[in-house]
Amino acid sequence: MIVGLVGATGLVGQTILKVLEERRFPLAGLKLWASSRSAGRRIRFKGKNYPVASVERADFSGCGIVFFAGTEGEKGASRRYAQKAIAAGAVVIDNGADFRMHPGVPLIVPEANPGDVKKHRGLIANPNCSTIQMVVALVSIHKKYKIKRIVVSTYQAVSGAGRAGVDALQKEMQIANCKIKNSVFPRKIAYNVIPQISDFSELGYSGEEWKMVRETQKILHDKNIAVNATTVRVPVMTGHSESVYFETGKNCSLKQIEALLSKAPGVVYDGKEFFTPAELKDSDMTYVSRLRPDPVKKNAFVMWVVADNLRKGAATNAVQIAELLLNRQIAKSAKKNLI
Amino acid sequence: MIVGLVGATGLVGQTILKVLEERRFPLAGLKLWASSRSAGRRIRFKGKNYPVASVERADFSGCGIVFFAGTEGEKGASRRYAQKAIAAGAVVIDNGADFRMHPGVPLIVPEANPGDVKKHRGLIANPNCSTIQMVVALVSIHKKYKIKRIVVSTYQAVSGAGRAGVDALQKEMQIANCKIKNSVFPRKIAYNVIPQISDFSELGYSGEEWKMVRETQKILHDKNIAVNATTVRVPVMTGHSESVYFETGKNCSLKQIEALLSKAPGVVYDGKEFFTPAELKDSDMTYVSRLRPDPVKKNAFVMWVVADNLRKGAATNAVQIAELLLNRQIAKSAKKNLI
Repeated sequence: MIVGLVGATGLVGQTILKVLEERRFPLAGLKLWASSRSAGRRIRFKGKNYPVASVERADFSGCGIVFFAGTEGEKGASRRYAQKAIAAGAVVIDNGADFRMHPGVPLIVPEANPGDVKKHRGLIANPNCSTIQMVVALVSIHKKYKIKRIVVSTYQAVSGAGRAGVDALQKEMQIANCKIKNSVFPRKIAYNVIPQISDFSELGYSGEEWKMVRETQKILHDKNIAVNATTVRVPVMTGHSESVYFETGKNCSLKQIEALLSKAPGVVYDGKEFFTPAELKDSDMTYVSRLRPDPVKKNAFVMWVVADNLRKGAATNAVQIAELLLNRQIAKSAKKNLI
Repeated sequence: MIVGLVGATGLVGQTILKVLEERRFPLAGLKLWASSRSAGRRIRFKGKNYPVASVERADFSGCGIVFFAGTEGEKGASRRYAQKAIAAGAVVIDNGADFRMHPGVPLIVPEANPGDVKKHRGLIANPNCSTIQMVVALVSIHKKYKIKRIVVSTYQAVSGAGRAGVDALQKEMQIANCKIKNSVFPRKIAYNVIPQISDFSELGYSGEEWKMVRETQKILHDKNIAVNATTVRVPVMTGHSESVYFETGKNCSLKQIEALLSKAPGVVYDGKEFFTPAELKDSDMTYVSRLRPDPVKKNAFVMWVVADNLRKGAATNAVQIAELLLNRQIAKSAKKNLI
């Protein structure tokens, strides 16, 4: 199968290539595209150089799967070009937010709702980074004890805003009191935390916070899960952390939750030590620690969830979706013009 | 009145001197002490140099008020020397944690429970930094609508661990991948977040998290307030931030909460813009923004609370307690040997 990648020069695009290579994804060819700004470059993959063409004149024919690697900072490519790729016969796996809540688009976390890939009509969406790791940590608990309420506060790395986010933090760190023009962040991020990720909307919640509400409900097939989110940018390069408080509808004990987490797919659980984002080493796992019962409320718990936002929060999850398609032999865009 | 200060060379001690000067605290004399390591230095206050003596041989006689400026990193001074200061006739205002939960010790946030100073028996405790700013933000809401439940996640600056905390972050920032020996932090803090502040204890909550539970209940005189806390160190020099979710026992609307916050003592409330810790400029106020109602639950809200941990979280609150004593003319240790 020929694999296409739009946004090949971005942080997520680069990580998709790394993950495809690491996981020995079976591909017969590779086509790379980026914005006209980055076109003309060459990218090395499995010892071979591949040219990066401009997405504006992309020919998607022959591609079985096309990844759209848009991050927060580079939006809209799938809105403009995904339909063309689908028409050419590819299945699009879109890392961007544009189609996630579309009723005809499966939103997949392979550990949670792999079966939903079957429903695709040419495009499958990769969820938001902060949603993915929370869902991986919660899904086994939800399946057994029904989560009814979540209060989450995030500590999100600058690479969630793409290379521009990393550049902003690095520059600000080098020059004391510098003010970066046109920074991707609404305030200084060096030695600071910023309680805004994407624009504020309904009820004063940010776009990122609403993603955690709605995407979680969609992935877990449960409109009744109440999510209250506060999403915050922190001066960490890569690795999102989350303080996740949750209440279950069914009775359960700390030991029962621990037993589930210890064998949950994609989860590394530690009941003694805790995890921090700087210690993640190119891992695709979601790290859960500091699980503890609420001091007074029954069936309420809080835990600390850390994962690599570029890998499990973006690239790895996208490649896992591609693997699901391959395994189920449904990597074929049967229908067209449906998104 | 002669004022004494133990821990004069530390970050909190230095900030107490700054705040005393700014607020024109009426003092007739100043006596400074520190550990023997720092003794012998001179500190400038209102244009005059004052010697710093070793606390081991401190003579507290003549002092009306003695501040103990211990931070997390410099514990135990009040346990060893407070009784001596009280016996000499002083009222001790202790920034450390040693006596906060003692039944005979008032724990004061002047905006919340100023009347409790009357109950002192020689020692008054300053609450934990993260507790103070949360209580300042919540007390007016609690008085009117009775807060019954809080879920809080913190983003705490390194200066909360004293000068050693600031030094650790600065050093780690200068040298890539350096591992600091005997750091005050359990992991690297540069480009990282650490979900542990003080030792883990009951149910897996850290000491800092239990402080937020128990001190809040004590200050607000309500054992039934349920607090679930996750306290996290972030690479910010000064300024703690908190994501505070709360539920009230009585019916109230967003507008009613906003009205209370807009006139709450010690609070700066902004309904449109948000605050970040790096923007605090030597302010004694507690900054509340991003107040929003829970998307589904009635009488539930979440907000973002920022304050200077060295000032309102420590020095300013301590000086305000001293002002309360002066105003009520109770700055006199009537009883002895009671703590």
